[in-house]
Amino acid sequence: MMRTRPLKVALLGCGVVGSEVARIMTTHADDLAARIGAPVELAGVAVRRPSKVREGIDPSLVTTDATALVKRGDLDVVVEVIGGIEPARTLITTAFEHGASVVSANKALLAQDGAALHAAAGEHDKDLYYEAAVAGAIPLIRPLRESLAGDKVNRVLGIVNGTTNFILDKMDSTGAGYQEALDEATALGYAEADPTADVEGFDAAAKAAILAGIAFHTRVRLDDVYREGMTEVTAADFASAKEMGCTIKLLAICERAEDGESVSARVHPAMIPLSHPLASVRGAYNAVFVESDASGQLMFYGPGAGGAPTASAVLGDIVAVCRNRLSGSTGPGESSYAALPVSGMGDVVTRYHISLDVADKPGVLAQVATVFAEHGVSIDTVRQQGKDGEASLVVVTHRASDASLTGTVEALRSLDTVRGVASIMRVEGE
Amino acid sequence: MMRTRPLKVALLGCGVVGSEVARIMTTHADDLAARIGAPVELAGVAVRRPSKVREGIDPSLVTTDATALVKRGDLDVVVEVIGGIEPARTLITTAFEHGASVVSANKALLAQDGAALHAAAGEHDKDLYYEAAVAGAIPLIRPLRESLAGDKVNRVLGIVNGTTNFILDKMDSTGAGYQEALDEATALGYAEADPTADVEGFDAAAKAAILAGIAFHTRVRLDDVYREGMTEVTAADFASAKEMGCTIKLLAICERAEDGESVSARVHPAMIPLSHPLASVRGAYNAVFVESDASGQLMFYGPGAGGAPTASAVLGDIVAVCRNRLSGSTGPGESSYAALPVSGMGDVVTRYHISLDVADKPGVLAQVATVFAEHGVSIDTVRQQGKDGEASLVVVTHRASDASLTGTVEALRSLDTVRGVASIMRVEGE
Repeated sequence: MMRTRPLKVALLGCGVVGSEVARIMTTHADDLAARIGAPVELAGVAVRRPSKVREGIDPSLVTTDATALVKRGDLDVVVEVIGGIEPARTLITTAFEHGASVVSANKALLAQDGAALHAAAGEHDKDLYYEAAVAGAIPLIRPLRESLAGDKVNRVLGIVNGTTNFILDKMDSTGAGYQEALDEATALGYAEADPTADVEGFDAAAKAAILAGIAFHTRVRLDDVYREGMTEVTAADFASAKEMGCTIKLLAICERAEDGESVSARVHPAMIPLSHPLASVRGAYNAVFVESDASGQLMFYGPGAGGAPTASAVLGDIVAVCRNRLSGSTGPGESSYAALPVSGMGDVVTRYHISLDVADKPGVLAQVATVFAEHGVSIDTVRQQGKDGEASLVVVTHRASDASLTGTVEALRSLDTVRGVASIMRVEGE
Repeated sequence: MMRTRPLKVALLGCGVVGSEVARIMTTHADDLAARIGAPVELAGVAVRRPSKVREGIDPSLVTTDATALVKRGDLDVVVEVIGGIEPARTLITTAFEHGASVVSANKALLAQDGAALHAAAGEHDKDLYYEAAVAGAIPLIRPLRESLAGDKVNRVLGIVNGTTNFILDKMDSTGAGYQEALDEATALGYAEADPTADVEGFDAAAKAAILAGIAFHTRVRLDDVYREGMTEVTAADFASAKEMGCTIKLLAICERAEDGESVSARVHPAMIPLSHPLASVRGAYNAVFVESDASGQLMFYGPGAGGAPTASAVLGDIVAVCRNRLSGSTGPGESSYAALPVSGMGDVVTRYHISLDVADKPGVLAQVATVFAEHGVSIDTVRQQGKDGEASLVVVTHRASDASLTGTVEALRSLDTVRGVASIMRVEGE
């Protein structure tokens, strides 16, 4: 039954993920062959530093010429784990042109150029798989694209960045401030020396674009994703959250509007109730909540990063692509037929927690409440605490559009009695 | 681009799940067509009571002759949602013989005859998909079979029966006894009039057999699954669990032995730590924890039953099978190449919580400890509480084989000073 010609896999990049893919391909060769129906062999490894010793990898396979590797013409699968836009993009399209299917873990590239890459794959009748690009080992792309193919997804709500979840979890459990928690994350290797991509939400925004595109069968580009980092979350915000029975998470939220006629994608810190399953996602773990018409609420939880978990996702894709090669078929490609408009942040509707510093004198609450009412933002609860002529006022609203809330806050700032807006945080997951 | 001949789908059974499948096929016809690449049409519905009014289903499609329906020869997909062994089994094999692929939600049949059904599908080069057979809408079969195809699964630990989870959750949160909680589950429609299949673990055992087979690439039959129901779990057991920082869940556990040379599958109530993600799975929800070499710990959570969630899983499979039909391929079939031996319960290794009623006099603890030592069962903690000449002794062991524990308990029962063994419960998830 088993075909003897091996399927040839080339690796572009041999860092933390690539070396683990190579290791598993070697140590689990028999299992992979049995599961695919043919042996797979490592046919080449493109690296930048060829002199580095790579345990378990035949040095004759190593090359610095990635372009020549993908042009060989005898490759079945090219695995791109370089990251970044170029040369990854050109290498992937060159691989398609020369007959290979592609497995990628490159969230930035897919979020920016997913449509063009899918088009290139389709033109050459090849597969483009990228389970590893979102939330490491957690199966998300395949469940959204295949398991839920007969359902209507309304919302994807997830913790998709382990670094920021580690920091926020630390702030929540110890009362530490942002900088202190970041320092610990850096010391433990959970945050990079330059943590910008994580803490400013760029990484999560790329994943949100990919998830929204698949969930809503609509092209969602990175530029379409509203992005707000978590560097301004304070210990005081956590104290406010606790008073509401909430914690704070950096969430990626992809939503279908209530009228179903548009979608949106956004990344920002938000309060979520402690009773929500995402609230108990600790440390560097990731979890994604998916709400659909028929299946209700599903959650997928696991390690969102790391060499071995990401390699597991890459290998699952390698097996799928190899099976497709053997049967002469391709898996599902891009599905963007719904082509729904992507709303800007102003149209997004949610709840808000607003802390104001106000003068502690009669009539202030009435003034503030009038501003909310004038902007059509309905107040759910309000709590005032006064001391020495100053007071803090905490307002939690019902659902309102971001544009209405922004207008409200601008008007509040112009009130003499409002000394300052201490914080504004969205409330999600209810 | 779109092929115009519709793909033909026949439904066997039109109860809670079947009617929801038919409804979604009608209301979401355009979405399904776009996702598949061709329209799908409902070509026939086999029922037992043709006179029943079925909203939204053309009466001319309804037949009582399921056999004639599956023999039509023009069907692309037969959806079996009848349940039970016969006539489902014969109808499925007949469907393969007459050119259709099959989507089934029938856990009992797949657990008992999965190998033969897969062989029949393979012989006719057709698909057999059954995501809906385990844990309703939660994607599990596809992630295990495809996403983790490049990984090595070591353990699957899950709450796969909503009825029993509802009952145990109620006992935990209210202190109710088993019967009281069962009565409430029945009144609310979470338990059937005859709850045997759920509370005695038969339903969970069928799911365990299916999951173990896929996870370990080994045939695991229903008879291979050790099964213990949860009817004897008491309020006192929950009190004991709480003292240990645990709760009690009915778990389906599929494990690779530590030496990797065998596997096992079992269903029984067990204590798990409150810190374990499965401990917070409430009400009738299901959740499955998967531990693998590379991906670490993954969890899949969602509604494990109900018409709409199960229909979502069925429709995901219909879309996949239809895509395969269009590309002239089939998805992954049975993978049983590993063919590992399936151990009996005696070889299973875990921890135990044992409550003994003993005479409150000097030397009893020494006697009891000696019995454990003689059987090679190492004690982790022991707690003694005495009153009026009687005492209770709670022993928590380190990991030991079920056979050693059974031998220990037999020997304890023969001690004069041991008045009775109040309860024995396994401790999992650590």
